[in-house]
Amino acid sequence: MDVAIIGGTGYGAVELLRFLHNHPHVQVKKVISHSNSGTELAEVYPHVVDIIDIQMAELDVDSLAQEVELVFFATPSNVSKNIIPTLVDKGVRCIDLSGDFRLQDGEKYQTYYGEEIASQTYIEKAVYGLPEVNKEAIKHASILANPGCYPTATTLGLIPSIEQELVDRSSIIVDAKTGVSGAGRSLSLNVHFSEMNENFKAYKIGVHKHIPEIEQILSERANGDIQVIFTPHIVPMTRGIMSTIYVDMKDNYSTKQLIDVYQAYFQDHPFVRVRREGVFPSTKEVYGSNYCDIGLYADERTGKLIIVSVIDNLVKGASGQAIQNMNIMYGWEETTGLDQLPIYP
Amino acid sequence: MDVAIIGGTGYGAVELLRFLHNHPHVQVKKVISHSNSGTELAEVYPHVVDIIDIQMAELDVDSLAQEVELVFFATPSNVSKNIIPTLVDKGVRCIDLSGDFRLQDGEKYQTYYGEEIASQTYIEKAVYGLPEVNKEAIKHASILANPGCYPTATTLGLIPSIEQELVDRSSIIVDAKTGVSGAGRSLSLNVHFSEMNENFKAYKIGVHKHIPEIEQILSERANGDIQVIFTPHIVPMTRGIMSTIYVDMKDNYSTKQLIDVYQAYFQDHPFVRVRREGVFPSTKEVYGSNYCDIGLYADERTGKLIIVSVIDNLVKGASGQAIQNMNIMYGWEETTGLDQLPIYP
Amino acid sequence: MDVAIIGGTGYGAVELLRFLHNHPHVQVKKVISHSNSGTELAEVYPHVVDIIDIQMAELDVDSLAQEVELVFFATPSNVSKNIIPTLVDKGVRCIDLSGDFRLQDGEKYQTYYGEEIASQTYIEKAVYGLPEVNKEAIKHASILANPGCYPTATTLGLIPSIEQELVDRSSIIVDAKTGVSGAGRSLSLNVHFSEMNENFKAYKIGVHKHIPEIEQILSERANGDIQVIFTPHIVPMTRGIMSTIYVDMKDNYSTKQLIDVYQAYFQDHPFVRVRREGVFPSTKEVYGSNYCDIGLYADERTGKLIIVSVIDNLVKGASGQAIQNMNIMYGWEETTGLDQLPIYP
Amino acid sequence: MDVAIIGGTGYGAVELLRFLHNHPHVQVKKVISHSNSGTELAEVYPHVVDIIDIQMAELDVDSLAQEVELVFFATPSNVSKNIIPTLVDKGVRCIDLSGDFRLQDGEKYQTYYGEEIASQTYIEKAVYGLPEVNKEAIKHASILANPGCYPTATTLGLIPSIEQELVDRSSIIVDAKTGVSGAGRSLSLNVHFSEMNENFKAYKIGVHKHIPEIEQILSERANGDIQVIFTPHIVPMTRGIMSTIYVDMKDNYSTKQLIDVYQAYFQDHPFVRVRREGVFPSTKEVYGSNYCDIGLYADERTGKLIIVSVIDNLVKGASGQAIQNMNIMYGWEETTGLDQLPIYP
Repeated sequence: MDVAIIGGTGYGAVELLRFLHNHPHVQVKKVISHSNSGTELAEVYPHVVDIIDIQMAELDVDSLAQEVELVFFATPSNVSKNIIPTLVDKGVRCIDLSGDFRLQDGEKYQTYYGEEIASQTYIEKAVYGLPEVNKEAIKHASILANPGCYPTATTLGLIPSIEQELVDRSSIIVDAKTGVSGAGRSLSLNVHFSEMNENFKAYKIGVHKHIPEIEQILSERANGDIQVIFTPHIVPMTRGIMSTIYVDMKDNYSTKQLIDVYQAYFQDHPFVRVRREGVFPSTKEVYGSNYCDIGLYADERTGKLIIVSVIDNLVKGASGQAIQNMNIMYGWEETTGLDQLPIYP
Repeated sequence: MDVAIIGGTGYGAVELLRFLHNHPHVQVKKVISHSNSGTELAEVYPHVVDIIDIQMAELDVDSLAQEVELVFFATPSNVSKNIIPTLVDKGVRCIDLSGDFRLQDGEKYQTYYGEEIASQTYIEKAVYGLPEVNKEAIKHASILANPGCYPTATTLGLIPSIEQELVDRSSIIVDAKTGVSGAGRSLSLNVHFSEMNENFKAYKIGVHKHIPEIEQILSERANGDIQVIFTPHIVPMTRGIMSTIYVDMKDNYSTKQLIDVYQAYFQDHPFVRVRREGVFPSTKEVYGSNYCDIGLYADERTGKLIIVSVIDNLVKGASGQAIQNMNIMYGWEETTGLDQLPIYP
Repeated sequence: MDVAIIGGTGYGAVELLRFLHNHPHVQVKKVISHSNSGTELAEVYPHVVDIIDIQMAELDVDSLAQEVELVFFATPSNVSKNIIPTLVDKGVRCIDLSGDFRLQDGEKYQTYYGEEIASQTYIEKAVYGLPEVNKEAIKHASILANPGCYPTATTLGLIPSIEQELVDRSSIIVDAKTGVSGAGRSLSLNVHFSEMNENFKAYKIGVHKHIPEIEQILSERANGDIQVIFTPHIVPMTRGIMSTIYVDMKDNYSTKQLIDVYQAYFQDHPFVRVRREGVFPSTKEVYGSNYCDIGLYADERTGKLIIVSVIDNLVKGASGQAIQNMNIMYGWEETTGLDQLPIYP
Repeated sequence: MDVAIIGGTGYGAVELLRFLHNHPHVQVKKVISHSNSGTELAEVYPHVVDIIDIQMAELDVDSLAQEVELVFFATPSNVSKNIIPTLVDKGVRCIDLSGDFRLQDGEKYQTYYGEEIASQTYIEKAVYGLPEVNKEAIKHASILANPGCYPTATTLGLIPSIEQELVDRSSIIVDAKTGVSGAGRSLSLNVHFSEMNENFKAYKIGVHKHIPEIEQILSERANGDIQVIFTPHIVPMTRGIMSTIYVDMKDNYSTKQLIDVYQAYFQDHPFVRVRREGVFPSTKEVYGSNYCDIGLYADERTGKLIIVSVIDNLVKGASGQAIQNMNIMYGWEETTGLDQLPIYP
């Protein structure tokens, strides 16, 4: 099957290429980049030299629709919403790694993304691509809204507790930490090596655009409004996200009981690993892979449940999950092309 | 004035030496190390070669008491409690960077430190050395219990809100992150470079020995029992601590109001810097210095106050604060020997 | 085909497992670890939890010889030389990632490895597994001496110049830099995070055990004795080796001419990539992959050729090359199981 | 004494401020920044908030000449050459951390700096500020050309051997490695965190502007033309330079003999530390300090001398050396304001 990637110079695109390179059913026919059209991909990413021989191209929606069946958008915010409708109308399925089709509420989109939301018809078509809770809908999606990195780690850590009503919905605090690649390849003083190395920062406290996304998913699972406190931090490393989540338990559960609940919940989901009692995952244990690893601690002293959930922000938090969604959309084994071990150390 | 340092091969000792080297009133007469007695300090720490010419010695309490007026303990847990009583009885003042004299409750000490607490007479003599709240008592201390790194960052971030009853005491969550030097110089797989680099970990969830210390200080300031949820994490960098603290506000305060409260509270305390609205300190901004920098965010949407408090774990979290306490104990200017800028970048 | 790995707790073993996990013709039947026999692999390496379900075992040569066709040794120096002879006599082929069978000269082995060399019969059987120069012999090897990390990067960078007599053999200087994983998983102060982070070190100047290995290979290719100056350094990162090599050109070649020579030399070797003029590879461009990337600069001003050669020390410098050798030994496509892209960023 | 700094937003300026903050004889009266005039310094560098209260100003040469006695230039190339002549004519002494006044040969300046050299009159006035060899001239300098970072580490490592004719002048190879702060604060993909972290790169092979500077100094010391091969690399850390230097010995010296020569040579120079036999300095051992540490290895097998020389690129390689030069220019103790220990770990 022929696919295209739009947004060819970002880290999302380059991770898609890594996984698609080993995918048995798919071939990348086109890489679209507005800023680098005409340039060899290997000029921009020398690690693919002599392996991938693609010249990046300018976007031409009409010819693209004829050439490929599926398009991945690894674009900044507020780009895909202007292109996807046309492609979908021409029968091309789209997987969008950006946030344009994730939110259903136009007002919140306006607040957090600073522009008007995509047209309502297409927002309604969009399926939120968290495979662990939404597999059936994903199969038939024409617009697949691939989840954000923080929302993936955070909601997978919370959903079993929320759905089974083990915790107080009003008490959710998410203290999240990301590696620097989450900030993308665009230059900024904030992620200039000498400023970021040997440094740890909090940022966008109270205003991060993943807040409404997390709240929307959790509210859906809870059949009721959920608000979260969400504080993102940036860690001096390239890859990895950890969400440390604090929530009040409704009863005096033991850690063991909760682990049993989580393991049962995720037993048919190959990319979620719930750790045994006393063990918490670190980000390196999922490095380069599509796993989401979860550790649990029920603090009897205070009645809090502490959840530690880790992913590789560029894989399960972006491109790997996009491949997983593609596999589901086309009826292939969910793990196709994604069955590599985490790279360690 | 002649002083000694016990625990000469740890990072605490080496930071004490750095600050004492530029201190106008003090000379390090002896460095005691059980594991390295007879060895030149510069063999173990080559960065002081040709500058500090000291051979490490075995501990001899009697002669030590005659040679120096003050002893710093930069020892592991459960060491100083067996030595300090004798020294104090001989008229030597002691500053203890370990946790042996911080807790007043013997049972909690037993639980978290795994041994019996020091004898009650000396526990009662001990003064908890957080200068921003305890300056008067510190002046006359014979046993100075220098605070732990996490408790320093955490309690300085909370005390103004607690004392002025702006927040709900029952809702305190502390998500803390430390650089790797907090684990000391002892070898362990956990902080082996290839395991720790490009990694982010949670550890000792619910059982860290700084939990009772934080609770003791806060309870004292609140005149009432306070429990905290405290989750430590380790960051792939050498120095720096950030405590991100979540607490419910009692009223609908604005960020600006709270900043005013904090700035007023710390106005006579040279080492605490409260940042202006919209700005949060990163750990690198206090690197190598004795500052504690605090940022505040009142989240109107959820009623939470989010406090970001950073220190250098080896300085304000250990040796720098010990020097600050010494200055107070001897009536010198609080900032003597500590007035260097943070090193940046 | 069933294989075993001896040395199950080291980084070499864990990288073998990563590549063998995706290899279509091979199954890991046994992982042998003296220090961890009886332990689940996932206890020691949590990143494989729920994926690889193997309990590490004690070595029993007899039963091993019946269970597997091939054994990988990812052991420290001076271990495999005592086991491989027995296995080979029982008809098991062995790939040795340690240095025990690399040197032919017993005296040099004694000097650099501190023990007696393996018995001469088996040293003579051993084939040095640098596929780019030794492919035919590798096909039939019963003992495959897998090259060291520094020798791989260094000799691949030099061989075309040496064989085609473009450079003065007496002038070779190799300034080499490795990531910390080259030091393995054994604890040492040298690679303790707080000592190694934000640090750059030279080590084992003039005495590194890869010196005689590099000299042996180059001397063979040159049909004459070659000595090299070799200085290893350690870089605060986990993976990657760069050898920067200085050698006098015999004539006034241009960079372009030399690149042509190298590209021709390696045209049938899928894992060596020679970069175009003006471009030098960085270590990250081969991260996690089996590539060796080479950049060249002919300095007309001084008549020196400067060669930059990079590999991932754990892949082309160890486990990846071992898989490549296995593929050749069994007549499979050389790239089988190794065709993943470097992971970037 | 009142001084000014021009180039207020770069790392050179901020390190000058750190050392001048603790200097007993000097006060920073003005910080000039074209790009940030009107902005508080603490806006751009939050680590000085509440400590340094300076608003950056636009350059006005006339008023500056009346306000201060000395001006530090921490500017990019080709800036100071247009300003220093006017200031010097008005009686202001200038210390230039940029390269504008280091080279005497206008043609080489044109080749490596891409513009015309400063006017000959002022080039002749300029004194090259390497205090270990040029102290007398420095005392009376009106224009002090502060050495480059690589030239400082490299020439201090070579000068004793060159002056005492222990080595062959025609065989010098310098393999140099720098921390990322050497690239300054200007944004570039090259030093974007996710590109530079866990990476090691060679760059500007054969064309770095420090080549003619190193050759000029060494040629002066040798009374004869010296050419060097110089290859710079960039290390994923913020601070530190190591030059690993290879040179042929004229005779069969032992390491011990050479160390004796070096220790004698530098015995009156407080900032150069020559290590004992078998010990090589790492960059962290001079972190944040003005030391240059040197290790030596005479390789009897090959007749090569290998010299390892380390500095902190921002201190002895820039701002610290500028302060050292200022101290000499004004007759103060050479170490004034620079007597802090390296910060370790």
